[in-house]
Amino acid sequence: MFDMLSFIELKRDGGEASSGEVRSFVKEFASGRIPDYQAASWLMAVCFNGLSEAELREFTLALADSGSRMTFGKDLFLVDKHSTGGVGDKITLILVPLAAACGLSVAKLSGPGLGFTGGTVDKLAALPGFRTHLTSGEFRDQVRRIGCAVSGHSEDLAPAEGKFYSLRDVTGTVPSLPLICSSIVSKKIAGGADAFVFDVKCGRGAFMKTRPEGKALAEALVSLSRSLGKKSSALVTAMDQPLGEWIGNAAEVIEAVDVLQGRGPADVRELSVKLAGRMLVLAGKGTAEEGERIAEDTLSGGGALEKFREFLQAQGGPVEAAEDPRAVLPLAGETMFLRAEKDGTVDSVDARAIGEGVKRLGGGRQSLHEVLDLSVAVRLCRKEGEGVRRGDPLLEIRYSSGEKLREALPWFSRAFVLAEKYEKKSTAERSIVLETIE
Amino acid sequence: MFDMLSFIELKRDGGEASSGEVRSFVKEFASGRIPDYQAASWLMAVCFNGLSEAELREFTLALADSGSRMTFGKDLFLVDKHSTGGVGDKITLILVPLAAACGLSVAKLSGPGLGFTGGTVDKLAALPGFRTHLTSGEFRDQVRRIGCAVSGHSEDLAPAEGKFYSLRDVTGTVPSLPLICSSIVSKKIAGGADAFVFDVKCGRGAFMKTRPEGKALAEALVSLSRSLGKKSSALVTAMDQPLGEWIGNAAEVIEAVDVLQGRGPADVRELSVKLAGRMLVLAGKGTAEEGERIAEDTLSGGGALEKFREFLQAQGGPVEAAEDPRAVLPLAGETMFLRAEKDGTVDSVDARAIGEGVKRLGGGRQSLHEVLDLSVAVRLCRKEGEGVRRGDPLLEIRYSSGEKLREALPWFSRAFVLAEKYEKKSTAERSIVLETIE
Repeated sequence: MFDMLSFIELKRDGGEASSGEVRSFVKEFASGRIPDYQAASWLMAVCFNGLSEAELREFTLALADSGSRMTFGKDLFLVDKHSTGGVGDKITLILVPLAAACGLSVAKLSGPGLGFTGGTVDKLAALPGFRTHLTSGEFRDQVRRIGCAVSGHSEDLAPAEGKFYSLRDVTGTVPSLPLICSSIVSKKIAGGADAFVFDVKCGRGAFMKTRPEGKALAEALVSLSRSLGKKSSALVTAMDQPLGEWIGNAAEVIEAVDVLQGRGPADVRELSVKLAGRMLVLAGKGTAEEGERIAEDTLSGGGALEKFREFLQAQGGPVEAAEDPRAVLPLAGETMFLRAEKDGTVDSVDARAIGEGVKRLGGGRQSLHEVLDLSVAVRLCRKEGEGVRRGDPLLEIRYSSGEKLREALPWFSRAFVLAEKYEKKSTAERSIVLETIE
Repeated sequence: MFDMLSFIELKRDGGEASSGEVRSFVKEFASGRIPDYQAASWLMAVCFNGLSEAELREFTLALADSGSRMTFGKDLFLVDKHSTGGVGDKITLILVPLAAACGLSVAKLSGPGLGFTGGTVDKLAALPGFRTHLTSGEFRDQVRRIGCAVSGHSEDLAPAEGKFYSLRDVTGTVPSLPLICSSIVSKKIAGGADAFVFDVKCGRGAFMKTRPEGKALAEALVSLSRSLGKKSSALVTAMDQPLGEWIGNAAEVIEAVDVLQGRGPADVRELSVKLAGRMLVLAGKGTAEEGERIAEDTLSGGGALEKFREFLQAQGGPVEAAEDPRAVLPLAGETMFLRAEKDGTVDSVDARAIGEGVKRLGGGRQSLHEVLDLSVAVRLCRKEGEGVRRGDPLLEIRYSSGEKLREALPWFSRAFVLAEKYEKKSTAERSIVLETIE
């Protein structure tokens, strides 16, 4: 008989539970036989005393096994990517076709966006006709046929993880490294991939605020994945200002296509190529340099765009979006510009504030089943380090409702901090990748 | 609006909540508007990060004020005693009439015994006709008339404390010094006394296992009481072996009367006198030495026994119990002796094991509403340091059911540890009082 009280006391007192106890705990909790107050107490004890390597491994596996795992044939080597969430993060839209065009197999299951960061499924939903939710059979077939698929995941993917997450969310037990890692990795394990690349964001617009925190999470994710027999590496990337220029669901698809067409913002392009390079390394296709070169060539050569077209076709989306995304993905009709009130240099653009603003325009959800306005968006007219004259536009805002704009404006206004001196600098000086963990 | 999530996060991160937040938390929890899982998470965070002095004060007051406080006239100075719970602890039965006979006013509210330690109300219930539960009016009147009263408390005494305790009990959050202190002191405050003496037990048969732990709790209790404007002191007392010779509800009343009659075990007598002395000090009746002398004289002079008779009469009990308690309080009919299997010296008698054994005989409760067999009991024929010959009795067991005896015996057997050498020593060498906190 599993004794929950002893299990809590053991963690409170810094002891280590056996594999069997950890498994029983997850099983009993998932089936509703352990009350939330006991699970909450244990979760808070974990915030203080952590989990041992063995406990973390067992906890993660138990979460992964709480529903059915996605399985593919042994002949396929699947590579997956996970981002810890940022503002303007449209990387998946580029990376999935890019990696597939490089010969990799990518089966991407994606959750909905929550809080101030968007979800890939919401962005793809901006494409008229695109099927964001495939059956397991369709998903598996498509990966085998064209090398990639993206689908919103069902509730049967690591359901215990979802139950724990809901409880953590209301009990102040979200920020615990082992709990974060188990949450992320359990879903990746259940998704069936053989190798994972993690994009760990850090900065104002991310969950991890500092580079050391980001590095610690990246190392923990890679270490946990490996201990579970998965190949893994991680990039720690900057998320102080938003990624790219556009933030908003439809607008981010447009920007992603720009990059696939060989244009688009340098930071988005750089990160896509580096992550694809890492995936190629994990799949045994070469060194980091070789991987990046293959990815860079595939992107420049139009192979990724061609794969994107196939991907659209496979999932019922408008293939013409690969040529002229602006024609297929109209942005909200109303436009206003936020302008600089003085000369200066953009010292910082707070990604969090931009994300919160876009959410208030209707582009992000505060509760799970909210319907989004996919057409609202903002464009950063200036990014960090760029000079600006009084009256120059800082932010282009595309909105549908004046009322929502009024809610959003305070967030946008506080996002930009201008330094006194006018000083025109290039934004391309700094790499967005801060650390590579392999 | 009180924000419970922020309140949890603040404690998790080592911050200090305002008085208003602490008050709101207790109020909202008591009225059922905060779910148990959030309260549990906060309680576990307190186990790690504690409470600041101000938070502890406010939390304790909020618990005390969650029901109605007992009030007495300003002309009465009420002194109360609280024991953290031990095995064979019949001190209240002696101390209450003793203190009243010394001219003090004692209004003692008592909870039921739980676990392996007995409650005063259960012991008094062994006296045929004794009314263990008085109305507030009766309770107040009796204190005014004869100087003392003992009553089981109603559920309206600090009800939020009871609610928190129930949750702590199942979430592994009992052993936190500030939570223990707030639990004890809030009920004392609600009981209306002006001064408290704490008898903090430490050792095998107590919640606090070591002397430093006991001292820490004693200091914390005195400090919290004073910060709330109450006079207070504490004795840290040994609870490795049971107190006195008899353990069991009726038997403990008999032993208490023995002490009131000027006989009985030395440790029970010593502790009663020392606690009464402390109460006299708190009431401004003299120094510690003077207080103890007054108490000693009152006990020897028969004043305490006379007061006990008044007390019995006032609460409907059999006054003849003050003369011949054995006639009024029959013990269970069956007797067996646990005997020494070899020559030796009693190295230790595990109070916890004795308490668990008596509980299994039917003398203690495992759940709140269990009906007890008040007649079952054990007598320690040898205490620590006493020599014993093979075949000598160690424990006299008075039981009613052979089945229950079989459940209890393993506990009793393991309670006695004999050292190899036979060595007759006096038990009166060591004082039971280890520390005095004033």
